[in-house]
Amino acid sequence: MNAERKEPTYLFTDRQVADKSEIARRFLETRNRLNENVDKADNFLVKRFYNIDHNTYLEGAIPATYKEWMGLVVSAGLRCDDCINYHVIQSCRLGATRPEREEALNVALVVGGSIVIPHLRRADEPLTELYS
Amino acid sequence: MNAERKEPTYLFTDRQVADKSEIARRFLETRNRLNENVDKADNFLVKRFYNIDHNTYLEGAIPATYKEWMGLVVSAGLRCDDCINYHVIQSCRLGATRPEREEALNVALVVGGSIVIPHLRRADEPLTELYS
Amino acid sequence: MNAERKEPTYLFTDRQVADKSEIARRFLETRNRLNENVDKADNFLVKRFYNIDHNTYLEGAIPATYKEWMGLVVSAGLRCDDCINYHVIQSCRLGATRPEREEALNVALVVGGSIVIPHLRRADEPLTELYS
Amino acid sequence: MNAERKEPTYLFTDRQVADKSEIARRFLETRNRLNENVDKADNFLVKRFYNIDHNTYLEGAIPATYKEWMGLVVSAGLRCDDCINYHVIQSCRLGATRPEREEALNVALVVGGSIVIPHLRRADEPLTELYS
Amino acid sequence: MNAERKEPTYLFTDRQVADKSEIARRFLETRNRLNENVDKADNFLVKRFYNIDHNTYLEGAIPATYKEWMGLVVSAGLRCDDCINYHVIQSCRLGATRPEREEALNVALVVGGSIVIPHLRRADEPLTELYS
Amino acid sequence: MNAERKEPTYLFTDRQVADKSEIARRFLETRNRLNENVDKADNFLVKRFYNIDHNTYLEGAIPATYKEWMGLVVSAGLRCDDCINYHVIQSCRLGATRPEREEALNVALVVGGSIVIPHLRRADEPLTELYS
Repeated sequence: MNAERKEPTYLFTDRQVADKSEIARRFLETRNRLNENVDKADNFLVKRFYNIDHNTYLEGAIPATYKEWMGLVVSAGLRCDDCINYHVIQSCRLGATRPEREEALNVALVVGGSIVIPHLRRADEPLTELYS
Repeated sequence: MNAERKEPTYLFTDRQVADKSEIARRFLETRNRLNENVDKADNFLVKRFYNIDHNTYLEGAIPATYKEWMGLVVSAGLRCDDCINYHVIQSCRLGATRPEREEALNVALVVGGSIVIPHLRRADEPLTELYS
Repeated sequence: MNAERKEPTYLFTDRQVADKSEIARRFLETRNRLNENVDKADNFLVKRFYNIDHNTYLEGAIPATYKEWMGLVVSAGLRCDDCINYHVIQSCRLGATRPEREEALNVALVVGGSIVIPHLRRADEPLTELYS
Repeated sequence: MNAERKEPTYLFTDRQVADKSEIARRFLETRNRLNENVDKADNFLVKRFYNIDHNTYLEGAIPATYKEWMGLVVSAGLRCDDCINYHVIQSCRLGATRPEREEALNVALVVGGSIVIPHLRRADEPLTELYS
Repeated sequence: MNAERKEPTYLFTDRQVADKSEIARRFLETRNRLNENVDKADNFLVKRFYNIDHNTYLEGAIPATYKEWMGLVVSAGLRCDDCINYHVIQSCRLGATRPEREEALNVALVVGGSIVIPHLRRADEPLTELYS
Repeated sequence: MNAERKEPTYLFTDRQVADKSEIARRFLETRNRLNENVDKADNFLVKRFYNIDHNTYLEGAIPATYKEWMGLVVSAGLRCDDCINYHVIQSCRLGATRPEREEALNVALVVGGSIVIPHLRRADEPLTELYS
């Protein structure tokens, strides 16, 4: 399965992101460790779900970067810090720019309301580390 | 305020969309009627909020079409049929394509899970009318 | 149990509200019919829950009217049309004013974001019938 | 794919359920029609998702009936009427009893709060048709 | 009230669970300490609510174990880590098995989507401690 | 803009609140630091949103204290700890009483269900520090 696993064209590796942001580094470390657990558990439906999840964000009619922004906006709207962190890292790896980031977060703020603000505040830290 | 109200560059007018889709027509009719109520109520904070909402989706670092897709995905994730209809119409007016639509809805489905399916089903009707 | 059931001091009866608003009338009719089903089902935990629910909104350190507004705001934030209708009717019965209504809905809009707008639009109809 | 599609051991067919409940009949009719659209659209990721969804509720370490109750409780907690209807029908087809139904809905009510009540009220209609 | 408080038939005590899992131990410690506050506050409606909550999960037409799984699934769907931890501990005390656990979490994942994944990841730690 | 920024009539300053509650102190410290970032980012739409947010809770037809309780109840219903902390501090600064606090949290508990309990537990700590 992994042999044919497609990836978007990243401008930066996970490691490069981790070198720029301590928060990203810790997030990726935890995520990788836990994904090993998923591999070990070897639950067929979970692995299938992970596969769909991965393929949803590949380059297509909509460029991969914008798909990551979509993922970020819906994650913020649904108020999931871990999901926000993940899409922040992914969009950064794909070369997203700071003005794009601001406009994406504005969509999340307006759709989701003030309840989203604490999540945007927390997202600000890795975003500042990655986009400066 | 309205004098300087910016708009994205639409390929189609509201009326053209309404001519293609009965669901869109009814949705827009209701929306326009109710917005008149909002104008009459003249509530300062509500009008300000509407203004921010409008400006969030303007052409910018992220193209207006992708912002509409973002709006669609977060609306589906938060499961709001009216919001979905609105962004379906807007993305259509901006010239969005059928493959883009499929990929955007896939993001919503994977992030939001099976709970999102009934909303995607209902969205299918105006989408089919508008994209065929 | 019903013998000692306390009620807030209403300025208007259900019937008076139903006479002013067709939407309220239909809502109350359905609600009463379904509550008969609940009575018949005689589920102990459900009846207990209904009791807590009823007593939560009684006059207390916080006046009953403001508790209804709280109920309205959280219902709008959680986007439940039926719950909104219920608290609209209750606040009207307790003599709530139009400016209070506008300010309560502003809290819901700002906290919940644009995703709340379709619910506020739908709430506008019974509100207009009841407050004019 | 369909050739090897497993099913739980139903006591009743869709048609038998539809014969007992008009609401169930209409729900199933719409659902089948829309699933034809999904088949036509032939979106690979959506079909994969539908597959995982189907397989999640099969007989296993947890009996299929209880999985349907789980689906019902989480659907009520997330307040999705269509999902509730679906799991009501499925649990009925698997021979679920009326006391089970009451206890499952109690979990949903206590976890989700009064905001869930309007959904339980609406669920009451097909439930009464199917369990009497 | 506590004199007549019914309990399901547990296979393990809180203490036995706490001995197997450090996360469970800390969770239970905090929970007990805070419940003392609730007792002290002596708020009639809160105590009533806690009582309904307790009785909802008792052995009945649906076995207590499956009710705990239902609680787990809806807690995951609504994305509440503390609630997940609580039902993980309870299902363990009632003798739930590892395959049951996997199937219950699959329901939560499919219904709730990828937004649920970070919560399942965090649940993995006490689950691994308790089920190995 | 700040020159004409209106404020409700507080009985206590932020500092007085911070002196009574360590949790409040840390919360306010973080909030102030992050608001500086918002000021620096100078995003027009975000600043507009913050302004609407601020003005929504001013003294009006509904007294500022009750607006803060409304904010608290909807924050608890939507399960946002940071938002709860903010409204706890604000209502304290406006002179809210302990019985009011209990009644407001009861609304949140009944509307939102047991899923709200962990948030109320966490809110208990700053509340106890501030209201004793």
